[in-house]
Amino acid sequence: MVGVDMVPMKILLVICDGMADRPSNELNGMTPLESAEVPNMDRLAREGQTGLMDVIAPGIVPGSDTAHLALLGYDPMVVYTGRGPFEAAGEGVEVRKGDVAFRCNFATVDAKMHVTDRRAGRISSGTDQLAAALNGMKIEDIEIIFKQGVDHRAVLVLRGPGLSPWVNEVDPHHEGKILESKGLEPEDEKTARILNEFTRRSYEILDKHPVNQARVKNGKSPANIALARGSGSPPEVPSFSEQHHGLNGAAVVGISLVRGLCDLSGLEIIPVKGATGSTDTDLEAKARAAVKALETYDFVLLHFKAPDLYGHDGDAPGKAAFIEKIDLALGEMLANLKDTVVCITADHATPCSVMDHASDPVPVLIWGTGLRHDITECFNELEAGTGGLGHIRGHELMNLLTGLAGRNPKFGA
Amino acid sequence: MVGVDMVPMKILLVICDGMADRPSNELNGMTPLESAEVPNMDRLAREGQTGLMDVIAPGIVPGSDTAHLALLGYDPMVVYTGRGPFEAAGEGVEVRKGDVAFRCNFATVDAKMHVTDRRAGRISSGTDQLAAALNGMKIEDIEIIFKQGVDHRAVLVLRGPGLSPWVNEVDPHHEGKILESKGLEPEDEKTARILNEFTRRSYEILDKHPVNQARVKNGKSPANIALARGSGSPPEVPSFSEQHHGLNGAAVVGISLVRGLCDLSGLEIIPVKGATGSTDTDLEAKARAAVKALETYDFVLLHFKAPDLYGHDGDAPGKAAFIEKIDLALGEMLANLKDTVVCITADHATPCSVMDHASDPVPVLIWGTGLRHDITECFNELEAGTGGLGHIRGHELMNLLTGLAGRNPKFGA
Repeated sequence: MVGVDMVPMKILLVICDGMADRPSNELNGMTPLESAEVPNMDRLAREGQTGLMDVIAPGIVPGSDTAHLALLGYDPMVVYTGRGPFEAAGEGVEVRKGDVAFRCNFATVDAKMHVTDRRAGRISSGTDQLAAALNGMKIEDIEIIFKQGVDHRAVLVLRGPGLSPWVNEVDPHHEGKILESKGLEPEDEKTARILNEFTRRSYEILDKHPVNQARVKNGKSPANIALARGSGSPPEVPSFSEQHHGLNGAAVVGISLVRGLCDLSGLEIIPVKGATGSTDTDLEAKARAAVKALETYDFVLLHFKAPDLYGHDGDAPGKAAFIEKIDLALGEMLANLKDTVVCITADHATPCSVMDHASDPVPVLIWGTGLRHDITECFNELEAGTGGLGHIRGHELMNLLTGLAGRNPKFGA
Repeated sequence: MVGVDMVPMKILLVICDGMADRPSNELNGMTPLESAEVPNMDRLAREGQTGLMDVIAPGIVPGSDTAHLALLGYDPMVVYTGRGPFEAAGEGVEVRKGDVAFRCNFATVDAKMHVTDRRAGRISSGTDQLAAALNGMKIEDIEIIFKQGVDHRAVLVLRGPGLSPWVNEVDPHHEGKILESKGLEPEDEKTARILNEFTRRSYEILDKHPVNQARVKNGKSPANIALARGSGSPPEVPSFSEQHHGLNGAAVVGISLVRGLCDLSGLEIIPVKGATGSTDTDLEAKARAAVKALETYDFVLLHFKAPDLYGHDGDAPGKAAFIEKIDLALGEMLANLKDTVVCITADHATPCSVMDHASDPVPVLIWGTGLRHDITECFNELEAGTGGLGHIRGHELMNLLTGLAGRNPKFGA
């Protein structure tokens, strides 16, 4: 007996960064998602299935990078070394196998290498010229690639033989003397030595740079050093398509970290005008771009950053209000989707009472025409605890979705 | 503290092949199991516990062979190589460690080795003589064991030194030129060479065989070649009894694949007259045989194939009606069982809307006198999502059952 040739469904994965939360006094003991009016999410919960997801594992507090690695179907416990390569890729720097990449801050130090301002007066212009002055230098046999990011941020990539991501960072993370990088093992020492030398030279070059001379003249802190942290090498993993039975995918995402991670995994990045990765983002434009991308791609990841920002600010009503905006955008998308499995979830909890990431599992919702429903009627942390999906792990989600979309081969006969 | 000497309970595992499903338009949005009147299953759900089971892992689409390996307590991800040895054992051919076995079709080819009919006109008689003409030949130092199955089906076992299951099949799976088998690695080439030579010789011998000469004279397609696929070696695993603390078991099963798998794992196969492995099977006879076997054995696996067949046909009402027949048979069994843990489940979903296996988890029910109950009142996919068993994995089921039956030793003191 041969099955009919079912046309596999497409997959839309909506990630609401940091959306999962805890009860809030300001919201009468409800979470922002419970408190928000989300008729579209509730409809999908009623017609589909919900559950709770430990994005990494029970009790693990996910970072945005490790969380998204898991959600794309990789095990971060195995493949993650550090955040640097995702930030670098997110800023449009090519990161290759064997490279070691870092996030950097332009900071202000005095002549004794004491940090007096970690963000160099929140410098917002001229960093392209400062970055150009550092980019392309060579230390020993290592090539230095350096590029500015938003405001005081930048990225550093080391390229050459014998590099390792297992080195301490030089950024002290507060005012005080900069740190000396050290390797974890003897074979990591070369990278530490290169990084220390880069840090020293960055001061030499930047301190006398015309951009900084002008800043000092105007009473501003000079951006006279580049402080690196978050060392990492790009994960040596199969591409997203290889990992998921040939699934071709795209991502609509406003922030560089997640954009870089999607890019490195082989997802096509769809640029959207007005996608800021913040609370002022153009949700409708992102939603339209996601729906349009689904005409071409089998899989689209749509990422909204703002719930996480409200969580970090401890603003539960603001978070609830933004979740309502996402629900409106979702409603417009649903009117224009067909034969698509829709999944809505978060990459981690950012409880407003914690004002940081937390280990609480996140609610997850899966809906598609003809798929099963469960007894849940609303989409929130409370009801998801009784949902038909049960408790799942983040790195299992993609395989669940491709399975329900009819895209997984049979194992056995 | 010392427990009383509890007499361990017996275990009846009822596997309704492909029973798990999705909502059906023809059944007012219910699944066949939801729609069926199953008072006996519902009673056991009310008095016992239900849950959902990923037979292999979330998102994995199980084959019947990998699913049953998991349900017998083995991890198919580790021990499965291919379907051949289970089919061969199911046809009563002894398969030994180191053998490589295949499923075969008697097919029709022209002189250029183009397949013109993969089922040789659905030949239904004379295959015993054709098989006898191939059985017992020797190619290099390899012994050829060949036996006919039902209709155009047959099984091939290669026995001798240096064999490997990692070879391509010769069956093109549609009309067209037969394939040349190749080994995955150099050490697999011998098996590929033997298989190619066997295929060539099968044509030489069968094309001029009197059975085929008679077929051609009568205008029928000759069964003039044996095409192999599904290569595999018997899993190198502990026997069922060794795996489960000395549990001695038997199986009542109508289809050769599952029968062979049970046989290879060391379960006693109970032959039942009227057990056809199809929709016309004698359910009462199978149920009586299972109850009788429980007088002798600690564990009985009772397998009903038909729900899967209705799923492949997309016949939701037919599937629901057959599930009601299983429920009736279950009722008779319950009247005659004592001190038995009863488990009812499926090996995979075969949704009528998909007409093939799917990755959706299957409902599972466990009941036994004195064991816990949960809040579920009916046995179906929807309620099972809220059941006390939660979400389990297929390869964990047997240990759950032996644990509840009081057969597992204490781990620690």
